[in-house]
Amino acid sequence: MARIVMKFGGTSMAGIERIRNVANRVKHEVDAGNQVAVVVSAMAGETDRLVNFCREASPLYDPREYDVVVASGEQVTSGLLAIVLQSIGVNARSWLGWQLPIRTSDAHASARIAAIDTAALDASLAAGEVAVIPGFQGMADGDRVTTLGRGGSDTSAVAVAAAMKADRCDIYTDVDGVYTTDPRIVPRARKLSRVTYEEMLELASVGAKVLQTRSVGLAMKEKVRVRVLSSFDDSRDDDGHRGTLIVGDDEIEEGSMERQLITGIAHDKNEAKVTLVAVPDRPGAVATIFTPLADASINVDMIVQNIAHETGSTDVTFTVPKAELARALDVLEKARPTIGFERVLHATNVCKVSVVGVGMRSHAGVAATMFKALADRGINIQAITTSEIKVSVLIEDDYTELAVRVLHTAYGLDAEEETVDA
Amino acid sequence: MARIVMKFGGTSMAGIERIRNVANRVKHEVDAGNQVAVVVSAMAGETDRLVNFCREASPLYDPREYDVVVASGEQVTSGLLAIVLQSIGVNARSWLGWQLPIRTSDAHASARIAAIDTAALDASLAAGEVAVIPGFQGMADGDRVTTLGRGGSDTSAVAVAAAMKADRCDIYTDVDGVYTTDPRIVPRARKLSRVTYEEMLELASVGAKVLQTRSVGLAMKEKVRVRVLSSFDDSRDDDGHRGTLIVGDDEIEEGSMERQLITGIAHDKNEAKVTLVAVPDRPGAVATIFTPLADASINVDMIVQNIAHETGSTDVTFTVPKAELARALDVLEKARPTIGFERVLHATNVCKVSVVGVGMRSHAGVAATMFKALADRGINIQAITTSEIKVSVLIEDDYTELAVRVLHTAYGLDAEEETVDA
Repeated sequence: MARIVMKFGGTSMAGIERIRNVANRVKHEVDAGNQVAVVVSAMAGETDRLVNFCREASPLYDPREYDVVVASGEQVTSGLLAIVLQSIGVNARSWLGWQLPIRTSDAHASARIAAIDTAALDASLAAGEVAVIPGFQGMADGDRVTTLGRGGSDTSAVAVAAAMKADRCDIYTDVDGVYTTDPRIVPRARKLSRVTYEEMLELASVGAKVLQTRSVGLAMKEKVRVRVLSSFDDSRDDDGHRGTLIVGDDEIEEGSMERQLITGIAHDKNEAKVTLVAVPDRPGAVATIFTPLADASINVDMIVQNIAHETGSTDVTFTVPKAELARALDVLEKARPTIGFERVLHATNVCKVSVVGVGMRSHAGVAATMFKALADRGINIQAITTSEIKVSVLIEDDYTELAVRVLHTAYGLDAEEETVDA
Repeated sequence: MARIVMKFGGTSMAGIERIRNVANRVKHEVDAGNQVAVVVSAMAGETDRLVNFCREASPLYDPREYDVVVASGEQVTSGLLAIVLQSIGVNARSWLGWQLPIRTSDAHASARIAAIDTAALDASLAAGEVAVIPGFQGMADGDRVTTLGRGGSDTSAVAVAAAMKADRCDIYTDVDGVYTTDPRIVPRARKLSRVTYEEMLELASVGAKVLQTRSVGLAMKEKVRVRVLSSFDDSRDDDGHRGTLIVGDDEIEEGSMERQLITGIAHDKNEAKVTLVAVPDRPGAVATIFTPLADASINVDMIVQNIAHETGSTDVTFTVPKAELARALDVLEKARPTIGFERVLHATNVCKVSVVGVGMRSHAGVAATMFKALADRGINIQAITTSEIKVSVLIEDDYTELAVRVLHTAYGLDAEEETVDA
């Protein structure tokens, strides 16, 4: 007997027929003798509908009341799933965020989970009940309803799994796992049977949108084994695995002597490039740039600073989310007297392409391979950043698909050609 | 300063623009210095949508989970109204059923309110906040969500008004008050400025669907002054009143020396007629008919039993809701050996027409006037029942409108012809 958390996203819960499909998957785990808690999202489109109501009510809505409104979407699907489960003979009940309770901070609309009381949940599971838990929602001190921010149901699932010491947290979604890169760009992208938390964090945050980044961070901290798999497709890979398992470093190293150096290639077109020309080259200069941006809650990603010109000034290039560009330029203009730059340049026709893999820690030459592969195709690199398990470059966005394909091949990630059965 | 409960139905809450209209009405009462609690329904159509989800999930849905699903409709509108109120400068917050809490029985899907804790509510009102409370919902022991049954928001409003000792409970709806009869049948029907609880009970239960019957009974028991008025129309009657005030007998008698004998004419086409022919005329015979019907939760309304035939048997006629007719016939057929009737007749082309008024208590001849007026037009009476403040007759449904018009005139209820300003 294992304890399992199963999480189903909005596409999987969109309408009663799909909820029946979900219920059958849950029944399958129950029939196998497992204790099961299910975390559900609202029906696809429902949260948008509710958010739009709030915005229409007032652009400056009270986030406490916003939470009351938007939490209802998951309340509906959790009740419906409990009904459908009962109708196929599975003992089930819903547990709303305030009923367990799932205690959160009072940062309404983007609350963080503080603790989950498991006394009632444990008793329910021990009695053979499936617990159906609405994702995304919780309760702050003072018994107010909270929500975790968009995509928060993944985080709810991992938090429930951690609290109930689940053996596994299965995240059912509309793709069948994590791929070496976007299969729409590289048809020969391969599904990964395992990735590490760190790799998943890099892959998710740079554009492989399978799982909410925050939930991966929580899974890593709480050592929750997470599996991403499809609600709609039961196919298994050559090794008999379904989906992609996200685990700690140790589990990967053990099992795969011939582990790939690079796990995947990600890309992200949501960044804009900003260059401050002729910033005085003196101690503290960089702080004068990034402190006001941080104060405005603008997230800066890549930062490149070259050595000083002979004139005693330097150029500083960095990226910010495209949606924040106008605000960032405004902040910089206001801070110009303090920073003392000559002029500011910006561009939105850029893309960040990254190679990710824990294997690169122990291998030199990963970055060199990347630069050479791109140079061979005449792709100009505008900026570079590296972390322990990632190398990212900023390139002109027209070259995105070419760059991803070239790198996917260069690191030996292409699947073998499919053999067509005669 | 007064304490006021304002209740808005689904039509009044259907969409943000209408919620803004509601918010302006609330602000008006707040600006007049009143302490205000608002009870809201779900948006028109929303509860049907949620109920249909449950039915589609399973015709035999668990009512505990049904309650989780359908309670969400009012949760949404209460959050939205709080947001809109804040946007026009009114301090407001929502209080969900479990937050106050509104404690109910555990009869899920048709729970009864047991008690409302007012400590938090009183503190909130005293602090100048408008309390926005979702109607229809509550919490049973064990912290499960309950709902009160369709139309339950009226009952929520009256219960909140009783608990907070409100000076008045204003029920805003899509009509501007209670009329002497259905204005679609009698264009010269008059809006009543006051009716008694008892009259309202009779008018509501026989077809004047302005206010849920159950809420009127609660208002009578708790002595809550209820006013029914329009969300969309601010017009006042000749006496300067808006809507219709529902009050105790005492308040009526005081104010109106020349009170009408009859308050209104109601009709109800939802009843079917059943006649059991040749039931043995012996003690206990009637019990053998109505006990099995009661056991099957079939509500019997009019009952007519004539004196026995010379053969030692009698015919018993009664009415049941049309929706229950097939089931009633089935119950009777199964009980035939016990009851011992010869055959059963039924008809659905019937209508119950009633004249209602507390004034009839002290006046003879009300029933006679009714029978004569109907006879003059050749309308045949199939059954009669009377209560202290009501006389009802069952007639063929084709004559419904004619009968209502004839009676409206016979009791002097017609409004004077409107004078057209030159």
